[in-house]
Amino acid sequence: MPGDPRPIGVFDSGMGGLTVLRALAARLPGERFVYLGDTARLPYGTKSAETVQAYALQATRLLLDHGVKMLVIACNTASAVALYVLEEAWEKVPVIGVIEPGARAGVATTRNGRIAVIATEGTVKGGAYVRAIKRFKPDTEVVQLPCQVFVALAEEGWINSPATLAASAHYLGPLFQGPAQPDTLVLGCTHFPVLADAIRRTVGSDVALVDSALTTAEAVAEALAAKGLASAPGSEDAGTVRFFATDSPERFARVGAIFLNRAIDPATVELVDLWTF
Amino acid sequence: MPGDPRPIGVFDSGMGGLTVLRALAARLPGERFVYLGDTARLPYGTKSAETVQAYALQATRLLLDHGVKMLVIACNTASAVALYVLEEAWEKVPVIGVIEPGARAGVATTRNGRIAVIATEGTVKGGAYVRAIKRFKPDTEVVQLPCQVFVALAEEGWINSPATLAASAHYLGPLFQGPAQPDTLVLGCTHFPVLADAIRRTVGSDVALVDSALTTAEAVAEALAAKGLASAPGSEDAGTVRFFATDSPERFARVGAIFLNRAIDPATVELVDLWTF
Repeated sequence: MPGDPRPIGVFDSGMGGLTVLRALAARLPGERFVYLGDTARLPYGTKSAETVQAYALQATRLLLDHGVKMLVIACNTASAVALYVLEEAWEKVPVIGVIEPGARAGVATTRNGRIAVIATEGTVKGGAYVRAIKRFKPDTEVVQLPCQVFVALAEEGWINSPATLAASAHYLGPLFQGPAQPDTLVLGCTHFPVLADAIRRTVGSDVALVDSALTTAEAVAEALAAKGLASAPGSEDAGTVRFFATDSPERFARVGAIFLNRAIDPATVELVDLWTF
Repeated sequence: MPGDPRPIGVFDSGMGGLTVLRALAARLPGERFVYLGDTARLPYGTKSAETVQAYALQATRLLLDHGVKMLVIACNTASAVALYVLEEAWEKVPVIGVIEPGARAGVATTRNGRIAVIATEGTVKGGAYVRAIKRFKPDTEVVQLPCQVFVALAEEGWINSPATLAASAHYLGPLFQGPAQPDTLVLGCTHFPVLADAIRRTVGSDVALVDSALTTAEAVAEALAAKGLASAPGSEDAGTVRFFATDSPERFARVGAIFLNRAIDPATVELVDLWTF
């Protein structure tokens, strides 16, 4: 089998999607990646569906211009409100979002049929997780909670600070007490996995945390195999990432390291303008 | 004196500048206002100077198209990095930012010559407050602290929550202890005045908090008088505000009420597109 040497395109509003890139790189060591963070306009989580759709379309065009063989929408908000727009527009490559893999993992995990989803305001408002979960298992009880402050806490790198613990207690404390509490919590924003320890201290050890980065990486691996798009083993640039950002490479590298869990050299981050796409 | 009936234009990255609008409306009850929040691209505080300059230029053009007689840059970040660009571009109307009034008030307030400035990452990086304070009084000691999480906490309306108190202690606790602490704290972001109570609980009652919204309103009043631009007393639409936002009027109205301290009817918020400016 010759293999498809083209890179996989990963798109996010900023740096949070690097948690997805990290899972993809670990699951698919033979692939190379192009990552685009729309840092000049982040965050998407507080913006309207129409605005996020317009931004996501521009990002998609840039990645297609760079010859990607598959598009991963690593941003929950963009996956929630813009995926169907992108699917209509681009039938050239498979497009995979993070919502459906996260919803599927939540359904597979829960024992008591009660799932909580924490996400940005935009993702919650769009209701995509609720729809996806109920599509897989209609009688599931789903509670959504917007946790907007978590985004800023994660970007500040306050993984386990008193402020993060207090925010976690504020958002999640009321829901996770008593016998009717959910047994599964879907982390429906790419920023949230870095706060998993603090979240765990509020919800307790019996609640399963679903990180959609891991389940998305699994979905991408399946799609690559099913469509014959996997790269040939041992290609020389396997594992490399080309980084694009729409604003400050310095901040992308500094904050991105929190989410990618390794240092990023700012000199390797290319500044691009999406306005012309 | 006939008076100048044109409105005053107020520009901010989002809703935080409504603290400045509120101070302006209280100080200048005879004026009317046009307020523009660039909510589709907020926040500016984490973005590069070049990006903020481009955004601020577009916003300025829209407000000039609406016939404003003066331009108030209510966003600290835009004031810090884009004011001189706007001044070069637009000699048609006076342009007033929030940095210089805040710096002047800080210098007038301090007794021990030590001033702390808390602001967004972008404002701190640009160093505009330090330059402005030292221009007024060169031997002042100025310490800057970026407090990015405060922005999200204010937008969430967590005025006095445990998370806000913890964040305040994290950011400000180390600086405000011991004999060499500053006696003056400039709130160098329009979001921060709504968190003043929580901040006060960290810094103590002996530290003066300088809210640049109030001092900016004073500077605007002086400039109107000096240039003969004040409106005639008793004009019928005095005190009215026309709101523009680049994204979701619903969110603008909901979050904006926190900063304006009164309800905003979403139906009165007009959606505009700055891309074409």
